[in-house]
Amino acid sequence: MAGTTVPEGTESAAAATPLSADAYAEIQQFYARHMQLLDAGEAEAWAATFTEDGSFAPPSLPEPIRGRAQLAAGVRRAAAELAEAGERHRHLLGTHAVDVGADGELLVRSYAQIIATPRNGQPRLHLMCVCEDVLVRRDGTLRVRERRVTRDDRG
Amino acid sequence: MAGTTVPEGTESAAAATPLSADAYAEIQQFYARHMQLLDAGEAEAWAATFTEDGSFAPPSLPEPIRGRAQLAAGVRRAAAELAEAGERHRHLLGTHAVDVGADGELLVRSYAQIIATPRNGQPRLHLMCVCEDVLVRRDGTLRVRERRVTRDDRG
Amino acid sequence: MAGTTVPEGTESAAAATPLSADAYAEIQQFYARHMQLLDAGEAEAWAATFTEDGSFAPPSLPEPIRGRAQLAAGVRRAAAELAEAGERHRHLLGTHAVDVGADGELLVRSYAQIIATPRNGQPRLHLMCVCEDVLVRRDGTLRVRERRVTRDDRG
Repeated sequence: MAGTTVPEGTESAAAATPLSADAYAEIQQFYARHMQLLDAGEAEAWAATFTEDGSFAPPSLPEPIRGRAQLAAGVRRAAAELAEAGERHRHLLGTHAVDVGADGELLVRSYAQIIATPRNGQPRLHLMCVCEDVLVRRDGTLRVRERRVTRDDRG
Repeated sequence: MAGTTVPEGTESAAAATPLSADAYAEIQQFYARHMQLLDAGEAEAWAATFTEDGSFAPPSLPEPIRGRAQLAAGVRRAAAELAEAGERHRHLLGTHAVDVGADGELLVRSYAQIIATPRNGQPRLHLMCVCEDVLVRRDGTLRVRERRVTRDDRG
Repeated sequence: MAGTTVPEGTESAAAATPLSADAYAEIQQFYARHMQLLDAGEAEAWAATFTEDGSFAPPSLPEPIRGRAQLAAGVRRAAAELAEAGERHRHLLGTHAVDVGADGELLVRSYAQIIATPRNGQPRLHLMCVCEDVLVRRDGTLRVRERRVTRDDRG
């Protein structure tokens, strides 16, 4: 797999230095727990995966949600609405492309499928989104400092 | 990425120590082969990815399937039914959240999409499930000792 | 996780030696950027993730596309068609099972969901495919030397 050195005219994003396996595995595990907490309606535990002043700009709101109290309140509201509608939602995040910012923060751009399943009904792909996060380390663990989500059906 | 130490009131699941990159990559590769064997109808090879006495509690059965002979028989039956129906199924497993049990066994909770595609037809999201596995090491490789699958449209 | 040594009659594909975490994480990151470039219509940057003489055998064509100029032209054409149709496509690649070839090349078999979303419309699972790649290292980074894609609704 040494490969010959072929000069190339195009500097591609794919040629960016990949993160270490340790860093990439930590990011993948972070998102697995983060999304399982969200889908379980674990509002406080989920909010704690953001920094204290973490922000989340969802496509449905004109202004970002800021801080853990507001983040947790949003999850409780969504969980109540889903319970009333008799639906489960799953957030499937993948295709993580990661860059490292000037201060070591992780800039993670991911694809997100949101799957909705009504009780006794057929699952459906509810939304296809792109999720752009800034992750930082706090107390030895990754946290979301900023999140921006865009929907594929908009814009 | 050193980060400041912010005291926190909430101990979240996301703060659990992540697995090593080695362990996480091994789990991901285990599942990739395991699911590709299943979808290819490779009944014996798939059953061999369980322990000898491995059990699988699918949502469709009142009692778990136990042991490799029964596991393989289940795959052969499903493959025959799909061939007759002219459909392919793909099991897409991801969002793996992993805890380590008291004896070092791996407790893996994953999201599973089952995609069905009829010959000359449109693919559809057939089922959205949660897959909870206990993985152990046997002969130097991971195996499923117990599997429990729940469907999002039930319960 | 030491595990007892149980003798086994079946040598399964799952028992193949897994890749190192470093190699597997590099492959995952390669595909994340590769697919995000494709979906963004970044024709040249995407083509540069193939080797100079890289080939791509898509299900829609009788002959493989060969070389970066042709690969880039294909992306530009597809991007123009999607823009005219008012649709976005996302290529979600996962379930990577990797073998190592005789010359160290990586043989990667993956599942691919192609998600289509019309502007102001519902996302749908457009195609379910299997993607078989030969990856090699060139200039220190992975590149696709050969790609073969098959659709689940055919054959």
